Amino acid sequence: MTTPNDTALVAELNSALPQLIPVVSRMGLQIVAAQRGKVTTMAPFTGNGNHLGGMYAGVLFTVSEFLGGLIATTSFDTQLYYPVAKDFRITFRAPATSDVWASAELTEPELDRIATEAQSRGKADYTLASAITDVNGTVVASTEGLFQLRAHRR
Amino acid sequence: MTTPNDTALVAELNSALPQLIPVVSRMGLQIVAAQRGKVTTMAPFTGNGNHLGGMYAGVLFTVSEFLGGLIATTSFDTQLYYPVAKDFRITFRAPATSDVWASAELTEPELDRIATEAQSRGKADYTLASAITDVNGTVVASTEGLFQLRAHRR
Repeated sequence: MTTPNDTALVAELNSALPQLIPVVSRMGLQIVAAQRGKVTTMAPFTGNGNHLGGMYAGVLFTVSEFLGGLIATTSFDTQLYYPVAKDFRITFRAPATSDVWASAELTEPELDRIATEAQSRGKADYTLASAITDVNGTVVASTEGLFQLRAHRR
Repeated sequence: MTTPNDTALVAELNSALPQLIPVVSRMGLQIVAAQRGKVTTMAPFTGNGNHLGGMYAGVLFTVSEFLGGLIATTSFDTQLYYPVAKDFRITFRAPATSDVWASAELTEPELDRIATEAQSRGKADYTLASAITDVNGTVVASTEGLFQLRAHRR
């Protein structure tokens, strides 16, 4: 799912993750694609299961919620802005019994709207939907997150 | 927040957690109260922060989502039934910069409804709301989860 363009960024972000958010790193989360407007993550099943034989819900939450910050990093100027999560909903559709992947996209017009609004108002909300799929392509959960891009205080 | 009645059960559950859901145990989650219809959990700040100085969203999710299974364990016959999460929504209200606590309750009439419905239909949905508070009592997030109590297959 990576392209030649984002290989270096993906490696850099994966390398920084243990320092940035250690608890996410301890889940084994991997950034798979990190392009402007398009991001993908993976969480391994190993180490993340529960007593019923499925992946723990909090790992499914994480593999998707993480996209909201990641897409801000790949799409906006992180020297000027940082992302926060405001609201997140996850609907569980099937037990996850393998590694899982989550992807999300923002269109160019939406990226432009967010950047323009953040520049003029100091903040801009954005909604990110994702499907979490297992190794067979089955959708194990779907999510909708509300995030906000905020200007750093000067 | 514990009572003399649930002390032994709390100790037993905390002791079993590393085997039941290792990823939750690695977050340092502690069961604080485990009574019929009333449960409380705590997640420590240490080890669970992000690069912005707050607790990672996935830990806030976990400290609350965990209550849905926990209250089933303390309120129903786990030889007959097990709980699953169907849907979960979390609204982030303030950065969490300390240990956090989450509590949830089900009334006796609601516990009776769930038990009766699970017995007759083999499953019963229940909704659990919680507030996540920091060490100062500030609500850092509020949640609503939809869970289902299911009969084990025979």
